[in-house]
Formats: sequence, C-alpha cells, structure tokens
Amino acid sequence: MRQALLIAAVDPSVGGVLVFGDRGTGKSTAIRGLAALLPPMRAVAGCPYACDPARPGDLCHRCRDHAGGLETHIVPVPVVDLPLGATEDRVVGALDLERALTQGQKAFEPGLLARANRGFLYIDEVNLLDDHLVDLLLDVAASGVNTVEREGLSIRHPARFVLVGSGNPEEGELRPQLLDRFGLAVEVTTPTDLPTRIDVVRRRDAYERDPAAFRAAYAEADRAIRDTLTQARAHLPSLTVPDATLEAAARLCLALGTDGLRGELTLMRTARALAALEGAETIGLDHLARIAPASLRHRLRRNPLDESGSTARVTRAVAEVLAP
Amino acid sequence: MRQALLIAAVDPSVGGVLVFGDRGTGKSTAIRGLAALLPPMRAVAGCPYACDPARPGDLCHRCRDHAGGLETHIVPVPVVDLPLGATEDRVVGALDLERALTQGQKAFEPGLLARANRGFLYIDEVNLLDDHLVDLLLDVAASGVNTVEREGLSIRHPARFVLVGSGNPEEGELRPQLLDRFGLAVEVTTPTDLPTRIDVVRRRDAYERDPAAFRAAYAEADRAIRDTLTQARAHLPSLTVPDATLEAAARLCLALGTDGLRGELTLMRTARALAALEGAETIGLDHLARIAPASLRHRLRRNPLDESGSTARVTRAVAEVLAP
Amino acid sequence: MRQALLIAAVDPSVGGVLVFGDRGTGKSTAIRGLAALLPPMRAVAGCPYACDPARPGDLCHRCRDHAGGLETHIVPVPVVDLPLGATEDRVVGALDLERALTQGQKAFEPGLLARANRGFLYIDEVNLLDDHLVDLLLDVAASGVNTVEREGLSIRHPARFVLVGSGNPEEGELRPQLLDRFGLAVEVTTPTDLPTRIDVVRRRDAYERDPAAFRAAYAEADRAIRDTLTQARAHLPSLTVPDATLEAAARLCLALGTDGLRGELTLMRTARALAALEGAETIGLDHLARIAPASLRHRLRRNPLDESGSTARVTRAVAEVLAP
Amino acid sequence: MRQALLIAAVDPSVGGVLVFGDRGTGKSTAIRGLAALLPPMRAVAGCPYACDPARPGDLCHRCRDHAGGLETHIVPVPVVDLPLGATEDRVVGALDLERALTQGQKAFEPGLLARANRGFLYIDEVNLLDDHLVDLLLDVAASGVNTVEREGLSIRHPARFVLVGSGNPEEGELRPQLLDRFGLAVEVTTPTDLPTRIDVVRRRDAYERDPAAFRAAYAEADRAIRDTLTQARAHLPSLTVPDATLEAAARLCLALGTDGLRGELTLMRTARALAALEGAETIGLDHLARIAPASLRHRLRRNPLDESGSTARVTRAVAEVLAP
Amino acid sequence: MRQALLIAAVDPSVGGVLVFGDRGTGKSTAIRGLAALLPPMRAVAGCPYACDPARPGDLCHRCRDHAGGLETHIVPVPVVDLPLGATEDRVVGALDLERALTQGQKAFEPGLLARANRGFLYIDEVNLLDDHLVDLLLDVAASGVNTVEREGLSIRHPARFVLVGSGNPEEGELRPQLLDRFGLAVEVTTPTDLPTRIDVVRRRDAYERDPAAFRAAYAEADRAIRDTLTQARAHLPSLTVPDATLEAAARLCLALGTDGLRGELTLMRTARALAALEGAETIGLDHLARIAPASLRHRLRRNPLDESGSTARVTRAVAEVLAP
Amino acid sequence: MRQALLIAAVDPSVGGVLVFGDRGTGKSTAIRGLAALLPPMRAVAGCPYACDPARPGDLCHRCRDHAGGLETHIVPVPVVDLPLGATEDRVVGALDLERALTQGQKAFEPGLLARANRGFLYIDEVNLLDDHLVDLLLDVAASGVNTVEREGLSIRHPARFVLVGSGNPEEGELRPQLLDRFGLAVEVTTPTDLPTRIDVVRRRDAYERDPAAFRAAYAEADRAIRDTLTQARAHLPSLTVPDATLEAAARLCLALGTDGLRGELTLMRTARALAALEGAETIGLDHLARIAPASLRHRLRRNPLDESGSTARVTRAVAEVLAP
Repeated sequence: MRQALLIAAVDPSVGGVLVFGDRGTGKSTAIRGLAALLPPMRAVAGCPYACDPARPGDLCHRCRDHAGGLETHIVPVPVVDLPLGATEDRVVGALDLERALTQGQKAFEPGLLARANRGFLYIDEVNLLDDHLVDLLLDVAASGVNTVEREGLSIRHPARFVLVGSGNPEEGELRPQLLDRFGLAVEVTTPTDLPTRIDVVRRRDAYERDPAAFRAAYAEADRAIRDTLTQARAHLPSLTVPDATLEAAARLCLALGTDGLRGELTLMRTARALAALEGAETIGLDHLARIAPASLRHRLRRNPLDESGSTARVTRAVAEVLAP
Repeated sequence: MRQALLIAAVDPSVGGVLVFGDRGTGKSTAIRGLAALLPPMRAVAGCPYACDPARPGDLCHRCRDHAGGLETHIVPVPVVDLPLGATEDRVVGALDLERALTQGQKAFEPGLLARANRGFLYIDEVNLLDDHLVDLLLDVAASGVNTVEREGLSIRHPARFVLVGSGNPEEGELRPQLLDRFGLAVEVTTPTDLPTRIDVVRRRDAYERDPAAFRAAYAEADRAIRDTLTQARAHLPSLTVPDATLEAAARLCLALGTDGLRGELTLMRTARALAALEGAETIGLDHLARIAPASLRHRLRRNPLDESGSTARVTRAVAEVLAP
Repeated sequence: MRQALLIAAVDPSVGGVLVFGDRGTGKSTAIRGLAALLPPMRAVAGCPYACDPARPGDLCHRCRDHAGGLETHIVPVPVVDLPLGATEDRVVGALDLERALTQGQKAFEPGLLARANRGFLYIDEVNLLDDHLVDLLLDVAASGVNTVEREGLSIRHPARFVLVGSGNPEEGELRPQLLDRFGLAVEVTTPTDLPTRIDVVRRRDAYERDPAAFRAAYAEADRAIRDTLTQARAHLPSLTVPDATLEAAARLCLALGTDGLRGELTLMRTARALAALEGAETIGLDHLARIAPASLRHRLRRNPLDESGSTARVTRAVAEVLAP
Repeated sequence: MRQALLIAAVDPSVGGVLVFGDRGTGKSTAIRGLAALLPPMRAVAGCPYACDPARPGDLCHRCRDHAGGLETHIVPVPVVDLPLGATEDRVVGALDLERALTQGQKAFEPGLLARANRGFLYIDEVNLLDDHLVDLLLDVAASGVNTVEREGLSIRHPARFVLVGSGNPEEGELRPQLLDRFGLAVEVTTPTDLPTRIDVVRRRDAYERDPAAFRAAYAEADRAIRDTLTQARAHLPSLTVPDATLEAAARLCLALGTDGLRGELTLMRTARALAALEGAETIGLDHLARIAPASLRHRLRRNPLDESGSTARVTRAVAEVLAP
Repeated sequence: MRQALLIAAVDPSVGGVLVFGDRGTGKSTAIRGLAALLPPMRAVAGCPYACDPARPGDLCHRCRDHAGGLETHIVPVPVVDLPLGATEDRVVGALDLERALTQGQKAFEPGLLARANRGFLYIDEVNLLDDHLVDLLLDVAASGVNTVEREGLSIRHPARFVLVGSGNPEEGELRPQLLDRFGLAVEVTTPTDLPTRIDVVRRRDAYERDPAAFRAAYAEADRAIRDTLTQARAHLPSLTVPDATLEAAARLCLALGTDGLRGELTLMRTARALAALEGAETIGLDHLARIAPASLRHRLRRNPLDESGSTARVTRAVAEVLAP
Repeated sequence: MRQALLIAAVDPSVGGVLVFGDRGTGKSTAIRGLAALLPPMRAVAGCPYACDPARPGDLCHRCRDHAGGLETHIVPVPVVDLPLGATEDRVVGALDLERALTQGQKAFEPGLLARANRGFLYIDEVNLLDDHLVDLLLDVAASGVNTVEREGLSIRHPARFVLVGSGNPEEGELRPQLLDRFGLAVEVTTPTDLPTRIDVVRRRDAYERDPAAFRAAYAEADRAIRDTLTQARAHLPSLTVPDATLEAAARLCLALGTDGLRGELTLMRTARALAALEGAETIGLDHLARIAPASLRHRLRRNPLDESGSTARVTRAVAEVLAP
C-alpha cells in the first residue's frame, strides 16, 4: 500500500489509488501519514490553487493574468481529507455568499478540489460516497481541471491531484465503470501471525501515548523516503519503456481481457515510476510483474468458469505471459 | 467515429452523434480533440450566442434589434463540455442573480446551450444523465431554438448545435425514443491486434509527456482536414440526391421496419454530407451503403426471431436492397 | 389530423385534440405549422390575455374595469408551445418577482395559459408530462378560466384555448380519466407505400434547404384554408342539429357503452363544425359517421371479449347503428 | 344529488357531501350551479370571514374586538372552488409576504378556508387530493374552526362550511376513515334511456350557445328553490325528532353494523332537514327511509358473505327495520 | 376513558394516555371537554411557559433570572390541540422570524410544547403522525424539558404535560417502542344497546342546538369533579404503596413478561392516583386490579400460542396473581 | 454498564460505549446520571471548546493565537444530550446567521460537537439515527477533530469526546461497520428476581418524589467514585501492558476471528483502564478476562455453525485461550 502511494507521488498520472481491505487495519492512519513523507513544493504565493511557477501552461487564470513576476514560496504538498458530510458546494467550490451579500458581487470561493491541487485528496469509505460525486472527482482528477457551472458561475481552474479512496468491499462495491478509472488498487489484510499483530498494537499504543517521541524516532526514515522521491522524480523523464516491456504489457492485458487500453497505460506508467523509485536504468519485465496485480486486479470481468480471485488470476497471467 | 463527427460538422442537420463502446477506448479524448479540426467562423462581436452575420434570419433578439451594422470577428467553433454536476439552470440559462440582487432587474444569463450555438455540445456518459435533460437537449438541438420559461423569464434564443453523447451500453441503455432522435450512432471497440494497441499506448504517452511537440507533429494533418471541411461545406448546396438513391433509402427503411421517416431523412443527409466531404459530384448507392449502419442501427426494433446484432441486420439489409 | 385541428379551430368547445402515433411522423411539425393557417383576430391592445372586444362577458378584470373605449388591434392567433422543463409557475402564472423585490408589490405575472387565451396550447409528448399538470391544463381548457391560488395571489383570468397533445403510446398511456377529457383523438402512422415516403422526405428536405421559397409555394393553399375557416365560423351559429342526428349519436354511444355524455356532446359539436367547414346546410348521418372514430375511440372501456382495436370497434358500431 | 346539496344548505351540520359516479355526468356543472340557488346572507362588512352579525358567539377575533356597532351588508353565499394545484398555504392561509417584506410585520393572509366560511367548499376529484389535505379539510369543516400553526403564526378563525367532494371510484377510493366523515354520499350515473340523454345534451348545448337566455328561462324555478330554502331554515329549529324515529335510526345502524354513532347522528339531522324542506310538521319513518341510502351507504364494512352493493344492503335493511 | 384522564390529571408522571377505538365514538369530543373539568392553576404572569411559582426548581430561564418577586395570576390549565398539518417548528418552537428580520436578533418563539406546559397536549389520530414526531413528543413529555437545537438556537425550557393521543387501530399501529412509552391505554367501543345509543345521540343533538344551556345543565357535576381533583392532589403525597401491593405489581409484570420496569412503575403510580381520587387511605390489591388493564395491555409481546386479546390476557393474569 | 462508562472516563481513547437492552431498563437515566460522578476539569475561560490549558498541542485555533497567558477556570465535564430532531447544522456547527445577517460576516457558530469536547455525547436510541450521522459522529470521536466544510465555512476544532449510544436491538441493528467502531458494548437486561425489581421501582419512586433528598443520600458514594476516577487517571500513564497479556489479547482475537486490530487495541486499553481503576500495579490475564465480553462481543462475524450468542462465544474463547 505504501508503495502504491509512493508510485502515485512520483507520477500522479498513474491515476487514483484505491485501498480496500478489512476494517480496523489502519488504512486511514497510513494515508493520513503520507503528508510527512512528501518533499515540499514551490508555489505562487497567495494563489488559492498553489500554482506551480515552473509550469506556466498550467497556471490558473489569475496567475496567468498577473502583471510582473509572480512571488513564490515553499509549501507542504496538500493531503486533503474529504470529511463525511462535506457538501458538494464545498467540494467543487461555490458562490462566495459573503461577498455576494455584502458587496453584491458574484465571486468564486474555491473548494476542496482547489486546495488539493498538486497533492492528494483522500476519501475514507469511498464506497459510501454517492456514485455521482465519485464520478465527478475521478473526472476532475483525470482532466486536471475543475469546471464549475453552477449558481451563475462559470469557472475553470487547475485541479491535478491523486485521488486516494479507501473502502471495505463488504459495504457495497463500486460500479465497474468507477473501479476502472482508479489507476491502482491495493488490498490490505489483517496480519495473521501473532508477533506482527502484537508489534502493530504496541507501535500504535506508543504513538498515541507520546506522538512527538514516536515521530522523532521515525524522522530519519522519513527523510530517506523524501530524498528517494526527489531523486525518482528527477530520474523519471529520462526513462523510456523498451518495446519488449510494452509488448509484454499488451499481451498481459489481452490475456486477461481487460476492456480498453487503460490497463496498458497504467502498467507502463506504474512500471516506469517503480523503476524511477529504484533508480533503475531501464524498465524490465520484472518491474512489470511486480506492479501487475495492483494495476490490473480491479479491471477484470467476472469469469463464471474461473472461481479464483482476481489477484490470483493476474498472478497466473503474469506467470504465463512473462515466462522467459 | 471521426467520420461521423466530420459529417455532422459539414451538415449539422444530420442531428446528434451517439458514440458508444467499451470504457477506456479514448472516446472522450477524440471528441475533445475535435475543436482543433474545425475551421473558425465569423460571429457578431459581443453577442452571447455568437450569431452568424451571414444568416440574418437566425439572429438573436439583440442582434436583430441592433441599429446600424453589426461588428463581427473570427472565433473558433465552440466545443462545449457539459460537466457532470452541471445544474439545469446553467444548461438552459437562468435569471442573472447578480443583476437581480444589485439592480433589481430581471435579466437573462445565458447558459451552456447559448455558448454551444453553432458548435458542438459534448456529454460524456450520456446514459448517466437524467432522461428528462437529454430529452430537453435533443429538443433544443432539433429546433435550433432554446425556449426558456422559468423564474419569471420568457426568452427564446438560437441554439443550433450538434449534440455528441458518449456512453457505455453496460451502464444502462437510453430509451428507444431518445435513441431515435440521435442522427448517427457509432460504436468504438478496443483494438485486439497487438501492434495497434502498442501504437495507441505509445502515442498517448508521447502526447502526455510533451503535448506541444505532439500537436506540432499533427498540425499539418489537421490543416488538411480543415481545408476539406471548408470545401465540403461550399460543395454541399450544389449536391442533390438522385431519385434512385432516395428510393433505395426508403426501401432500406421499409425492409428494416424503422418507425417514422427519421431513418430516410438521416440517410439522405448523411450520404450527401459524405459525398461533399469526398468531393463527389453525385450521391450514389455506394455512399448510402457506407453510412447506413451509423444512420440506422439505433432505430431497429428488437426482433425476437433474429438474434443477430443490429449492425449485422443493417449490413444484411443493405446487401439485399442495394444489390445491383 | 389536419381536419381535427381545423374542426377545433372552427369550434374550440369540441375540446382538446390528442394526436398519437409512431415517432418520426412529423406530428410536431404539422401542429407547429397550424399558426400559418389561422385567420388573425381582433384583440384589446395591451391586454396580456388578448381579450376579445366583441365578447364583453369574457373580458378580463382589467379590460372590464377600463374607463372609456378599449383600443384594439389585429394579432395572429396564438399557438403556444409548452417547452419541456417549463415550471408550473410559468404555466399558470406567478408572483412577479421583479416588482415584488423592487417595489414591494404583489403583482401577477401571466403565464403560458394567459398567452394561449383564444388560441392553441401545444404539448409535445403529453404522456411524459406529469398527470397532475395535464389534469390542470384540461381543467382550465374546459372552464375557460385560469384560477390561481398560490404565493398569496388569488387571481382569475380568461384562458380559452384548445389543448393539443401529441404522444407515443409506447411511452406509457394517459389515464382513462384524462383521455376522456380530450375532445378528439387522431392517430398518425408512418406511410408504408414507397412513393408517399419519398415524397414526404423530398418535401421536408426542400423546406429545410429554403424555407422562404417553400412557404411561398404553399401560400395560396394556406390562404384558401384561412378563408374556409372564416366562412365556417360565420356559418356555425345558424346550423342546428336535427333530432335524427342527435338520436343517432346517442344510439352510437349507448352501443359502445361510453361513460357519461361527453361522447354525445363531442359527436354533436364535431359533426356541426365539420358541416360548417363544408358549407353544408344541415348535419347528416354522414357527418356523424365520418367524425365518429376521432370523437369516440379514446372513450371505450377495454372489452376482454373483443380483441379488435378501438378504431375498428367504433367503425363497426357506426355501420350497425347508422345503417339505413 | 341536488336534494343532498339542499339538505346541507338547510343544515350544514349534516356534514360534507360526497358525489361519486361515472365521468362526464355533469357532477361539476351541477355543484357549480348551486350558488344561484342559495339565498344571500348578511355579513360584517370588511370581515375576511364574512362573520354573521346574528351569531355573536361565532365572530372572528377582529369582529369581536371591534369597538361600536359592526357595519353589515348582504352578500351571496360563497361557493368556493378548490382549484387543482392550490398550495396548502393558500388553503389554510399563510403569512402575508407582502406585509412581511415591506413592513416587517407578521400578518395573516386568509386562505380558501376563510373565504368558504358560511358557504360551500367544492373539490373536484377529491380522490386525487392528498389524503392528508382531505383529512385537514374534514377536520376544519367538523369543528368549524381553522387553527393555523405555521410559519410563526398562531391563528384561529371561524370556518364553517359544507365540504362537497366529487369523485370517480375507478380512480382510487378514499380511506374508510375519510369516507365516514362525510355526512352524505350520493351516486350519479349516466342515464341509459335515449330520450333523457338527448334531452340533457340538447339542454347543455342550449346553455353553451346562449348562457344568458338559458339562465333567464330557469330564473323562476331558481327563485322558488331559494324561497323553499329560506322557509326550511326558519322551520328547522321547531322540529324535534320523535322517539320512534330516533329508535328506528338506531336499529337501522345496529342492523348494518356501522361503527360509532355518526350514522345515527346523520340520519337524524338529514331526516329533520328533509322534513323542513317539505314543510312537514314531524319527522316520520318515511323521511328516514328516503334519506337512509345517502346517509349510510359509505359507512358499511365490507361483508365477504354478502356480495350485493352497499346501496342494496341499506335498502334491504330499511325494508326490514322500518317495516310496519 | 374519563378515569384515565383524571388519573393523569392527579399525577402527570403516570405518562401519556392513549385512547383507541372505533371511529365516531366521540373520543375527540371527550378529550376536548377535559378543560372544563380541571381546576385552574397559579402561574407567573407574562411567562410563555406559565411557570409554577410554587416550584422554583422548575422555573424557566427567564423566571429564574428575574430580579425581585414574580407577579402571578390564576389561569386555566392548558389543553392544547395539535392540529393536523402543524409544522415541526411550531411544535417545538423556532426562530422568531419577525424579530430576526426587523431587528436582526435571534430570539426564540415558543411553540405548542411551551403552551402545553403544566397541561395536556392532544393529538387526534396519533397513528397518522410521523413516528419521529411522536417519539420527540414522548421524549419531551418524559423528561419535562424541551431541548431545541436548530436554526442556530440552543434553548431548554420546561415542558411538563400529559400527552393524549387518540387512534384507530385499523389505520395502522404504533411501533411497540412507542406504545410502551404511553402510561395508560384505554379502549373505547361503540355502545351496542339501543337505549344508550339513543341517549348519546340525543345528548349530542341537545349540545349542538344550544351549547350554553347544555353546559349549564352539567356545570354542577363539573364542579364536583374539579373539587375531587383538588382533594386528590392534596392527598397524593401522603399515600405510600404497601410492600404487598408493590410485590403484587411486580408479580403481575413477571407473569405477563413485560419488558423493563415501566409496567411496575405505571401500576404503582396509577393505583396511587386512583386511591387518591377515591380518598382511600391505602393502596390495595383492589386498586391494582382495576387499573391493571389500562396500565399493561399495550406492553404485552405478541404470544403466538395465546390467541386471546391483550385485555383478556391482563385480566387473566390479574385473576391468577392477585387471587387471595 | 456503569463500569464501562467509568473505563471510558479514565481513558477516552477506548472509544465509544454502546449500551443495548430491553426498553424501560433505565439506560437513559443511568447515562444522564453520569455527570454527577465526573471530577470537574480546568478549561480556558471563554473558549467555546473548553480547551485544556495543560495540553497546548490540542488547543483550538483561537486559544493558540491568543497573545499572553490564557485565563482558566474549573468547569463540570460536559455530558451533552443529542436531542431527537437536532439538525445536522446544530450537531457539527454552522454559519452564525445572526452575524451574517446583521454584520455581513461569515462566522462559525459551534455546535454540539464543540460543546461535547473533553466530555461525553449521549445519543438515545442510536439505531434510530441516520447511519450517515452516526458515522460522522464516530469519525469525529475517533480523530478528536471536527472538520466542517459547508456553507462556505472551512473550520477545524478539537472535539474529543466519548460517544455513548443506547439502543434496542429490536428496533433495527446498526451496520457491522458502525458496531465495530464503538469501543465497548454492554448489554442491559430487565432483572428477573422479584426483590431487585421491587427495589429498583422503590428507588425510582423515591427519586421522583424528592430528588434533592435522594441525591443527598447518594452524595457520599458519588464522591468516592470521583476520587477513584482522579486516582485512576493519575495512575494510568505508569501502567504498561506485559507481553504475556498482549499476547493473550492477540490470541483471543485470532481465536474469535475479529477483523483488523481494533479488538486487540480495545482489549489492551480497556484492561489498562480497569487496572488503573482498581489501583493494580500490573495488567493481568484476569483483567483481560473480565473486560473481554464488552470489548469483543460486537466484533464477531455471524457464524452459521455456532448458534450460541456472541457473549457466550467470547466467554468460551476466554476460557480456552486464557486457561492456565
């Protein structure tokens, strides 16, 4: 699960990450801890979307119209939590009622999508959210732009973020159409060996009794991960996917019968990000094999003749297709 | 699919275009790329409906009442995206709240239908939209006029546009009544041969890594398409449909048992637009045969005795009726 | 279908006209073309209900209270289109928000029912409209008065109009109670002979390519219809229904078992209007026979022992009852 | 049916009148014609409830607080029509928005219940109305007081009226609980003999072609009815119900097994009002027998062993119980 | 039924009274007549909750904060009628809109619960009320405090009242959870002997023809009841429940298997109030036996092996447990 | 049940307490009496969240920004009652309408979650509450922070409280996902032995007849409990869980197959709090055994082969796993 989040941090274009598994396995805790691992970023000061001064093509309307040089500062990468009960107007943004009432002006008040720009947007229990809202979030995440047409407003602003959803399959599944639009899907299970369980409980207790001491103990490890991320991002553009790897990815998808080409695209990007994280010089079949389950398991059609779980089916196809 | 869009661009009166197929096949990407292929148009400056100065009969109320000559300018053809979550008031237009509140005046604030005038209106996942709204959009598209009777407003304005809807048949079908009101229906499937799949993935990746370079590489091809479109439009009025072709179209519809005459009308217009695109001097049976599936496949009644798909049934009828 | 509309134009008291049939048969086009055939009318200038100066008993409150002579002018007969998505407040009229907000006054803003007074109100796909709204429209059409009790308003104004509804029986039927309140019901089917189909398509194409030329070509025919209408209306009051005809109408309804007396009333009025249109001096059994299907077919109860369609049942009863 | 309305006009405490029967039998026309038959009444001038100056105990708050003598005038008895689509706030009355907005005052704006005080309130198709609203109307009609607790208002005003509802049993029945709260229930059927049908149709036609002449022809008969009503009201208080009649009423209800005592109360009041209308000096079994069906037929429980209609069951019980 | 109301008037802590039975048995009339029987009470003048100056612990916020002595006056005990269609804001109280709009202040406008403090709140057809609202009313009645948390208000005020609900079991039952929270449940049936029926009808008629004379005739009897009530209240605190009676109550509940201890509590309180009404010096088994059906019949679980009604089951248990 | 509440008072991180059982067993009374047992706490004066001056890391925004030292005072621990009918805006807090309207400022008005900070929030009949709201409450309780994103507000404030819910399993169960998020679950049943029942009823009666005297009688016992709580809290941080106990907890959860690790965490915390309450020096298997049923019974999956109740299953597993 942590690997999937790091891959998305290296290359956000791999798409959202879906984390599912038993309740009480610390999914939420892990995702909320992600913020500490991300290297901070440079942003235009005062911009509600934290525009990236290094990508002039992606600036928001206000930054683009700005006369003279833009002032910038260093800020943490946003990891925005979508609270249960957030209303749609706060998610996509809405008319600023205060200015409307006091000054009679129709101004836009940015929402959570604006705040999440260039970062992560986390939804706990994504399967309890209205399908319509999940669809909207995936749509914005895919296009990187939030288009608001409501209450007399007509606004577009950048909203590039990685959508992270956690869910419990027992609480009702997402529609296949939505599943398919998440880039990666990872499964978290309760550990079944005694020592691991005791260790997790003890660590959790230690954290809760003295968070500051606990964080200090892990600060060194966190810094190492941040450095790895910075290097991986710098390394990424120089990596190209060899034809053999691309062909293997396509064969894998054909063998599993995934619809469309999102399977291949995700395999290619995820393998590349993994290679970047590991500082590899090329992207091999081995990278492909390791990221195949997370990239494909949620794209399979149900096969009435094959009772094995989707992870097993991906693993078997990997073995058959990528065998030397 | 691209051909269907070009035909609608030559003669918008063929009606909307419905694109359906597996998820992940790039339907949305293709439609959103359409804007680059359309020759720009001349419009009245400052008009919210971009009225066409060359068609005085279709001017909006404001342009018609305008004293003196109308100033004009060249603008791109609008390709308007209906975002998920757009509210009905933003689609059809509504009371301008800002002016109502600050000046106590009841003014109309044009909506997406106004912005789409003379262009394209795209709805991703049209089958997820409320039937009522689809009906309304088709109604406006057919009449070319948006009639607003709400919130004390009583407004009519030109709204001639091609409605383009994409959908996934697995997500629930449209009502036959709605299907029938789309002019053309095209189906997109995942390519199944390895080289094509690899090629598509590679091109997509190239685009995303450097959009500017990618667009430059295709600029020449785009310009050629634009020229073809301009010529086809100029050519269109001079083309008349020979009686033999018209009769063949009617025979085809009788053979397939389509309700009403929308089948014939679409066949005639689509074949003519195709001939115009190809610079042909007349409209032959061959044109009819090529556009028959897209024009008729969504108008068939279910036949319980004939299990073959609707495309196959159209193709078979074409073979029987148009056989020399 | 055109005959039914002309009959309603001669004597609006025959009640609404229901047009049903396959989709794509040009129902909407025909009804919307009706406006061109109606002789213009004299109305009080400035009255929102276009009151008839020749019928002082039917004047609206404002016209009745007017001191001095009323100014009048000649206007076209209204053919009002109820757009999909019209809100109830715009149909029946509502509080004028602009005046309420700026002047603090509770004024009535007339709706579509006001605009339709003395003309036609057309609803496309009447079976998609809420039953409650259809009921309300039929109620107003029957009484000729729109009573508004909402938002603190308490208004009555004349609203005499012919309700024309088109529908597709496949989309869900109207309740029998509603069906019965329409005066006439006509059925439109797709022509099945090749030459007619080709002819219709060709005419439609001609119209769309050059509407002005097309209209000019039919102007003479339209004028003749207008003259016929004017004469028929002048002729109508002098026509009385002979006892034999009245008795035949009653026998017909008894034979078919229609509930209540709406069947006879409609037969009598429709036959009289038909005779007026044809300049006949009396109303004979022959008139009755010709208008019986349109007047009665929607008033039959389902008969489980008689599988034949309702039109066939009316025709058979006509043959039996009116046989010499 | 006319008799039931006259009985309620003589003694409103008999409760509402329910008229049901086939569609198209002129139910609505008859009820709306009732206004012409009612003798006018004396009311406090300017009072929104038309308070009766002769019954000081029933005056509204305003009339009661009025210093000095109340001015009075003669007005027609209200016959108020509840239009389809009337909103609840207009029925029971509501906050006067105009005064609230312009003067910041919370004033009550009386609704239809206020206007109907001392008269009739007519609901066409009462079975289409929301049960909740019917219940409310019956509650107010029974207590003679409209209690409004909404929008910060807390108002009570007199609302004594006879509720008249018409309905078609095919459109869905009222709940037994509601049925039982109507005083009288009359059934109207289509006449089945030819001469009556022709006569009704001819009279209807005569009325519509020249309403003024038609009314003049019936003016004399209307005046006679008005006189009868005035005399019957004067006569009513002097009539007492003999014990034998009261006992017969109780026996009848026991025989039919009606719940509660509403059956007896209605029998007693209705028979007395009938006797008053006929100028009889006492109330005999014969009066009871004539009004029993209208008073009891809607209060029977379904009896699975007795398939005969409710009217037949009442008639049979009358024959058995009242036999000499 | 009258006894149950008097018991609740002596000791409101016995909880609400549920009256059910056939329609038309005068349930509502009886409850509405209760007001005349209650001795008036002393209350703080000007207090919207009619606080009791003799119970300083139960004063409302305003009375408690009042400097100096509180002025008091004698007022009738409130018997508040919850009209059908009362909105929740009027029941629990709400923001005073008038003051909010004119003075910009957030003030509380007390609702029906405030008005009912120290008296009775009557709901006709309680089974037609929303369960949620019944629950809320029972909750307030049980705690004697109305807690309002809505529209930015946060208010608590005393609301001690006896909830009286009438219902017809044929119209749908209350949830067991709600049933159990009413203290007493009494059943009213139509009398089946002729003389009683005739007598009731005659009395009802007498009342309606001359309410003042009718009331005068019963004034003496009413005064006697008022005196009895006053004495019973004074007597109540001196009465203690002997152990034998308490044990018998517990045995009875165990035998009937009622959940929780509400059964015993109600038996004890009701028997004590009955003894107080009768001026008895102690509370005997005989008191218990007489009030057991009303106290327990609505607390039984359905027993599939015992088809007898709940009243019969209580009576049988009384006979077994209390047998000497 | 009292023990579970005291455990949560010692260590709120054990999570919410769910109390279920028959109706009428005094659940609500017991929980509402909790306030009297809790030692008062020191809080920042004037802070709407009653911030703890001893935990600077948990201060609210306002307290954190406060210049100079914070004034503090001693206040009772809040035990907040969520009344039926509380609206969501009052629970989570909302826009302060008064300030918005009078001063045009967007200020936050804290809700019940703010008032409950550092205390208890009680929901009677939690199973009648909307799942969505229960989820939200558990989410806030778990994170200790209330995040409000609505009506243009974007606020976070501390909200650490113990959620106490009471429910009746017959009224509909909570979703397993929600059950699992409550820390402890206790069951309350009606006592079945006569003396206990009589005793409870007598005590209840004594309380209601003279609350002040009743409370005085128990004051000494309450003070002892308060002292125990104060000592237990001071003792808690020094207690560590021995490895053997931790391992036993993990074995127990494995044996019962509870999902995730919430079972172990709760066992560990609850046993520690129990040991603290009892002044024990270490946490033994015996503590574990005693708190296992309340900690685990609501986390079991249904086992179709094991018909015994969940409490019995926990007890059996305790016997097997913790056997020496």
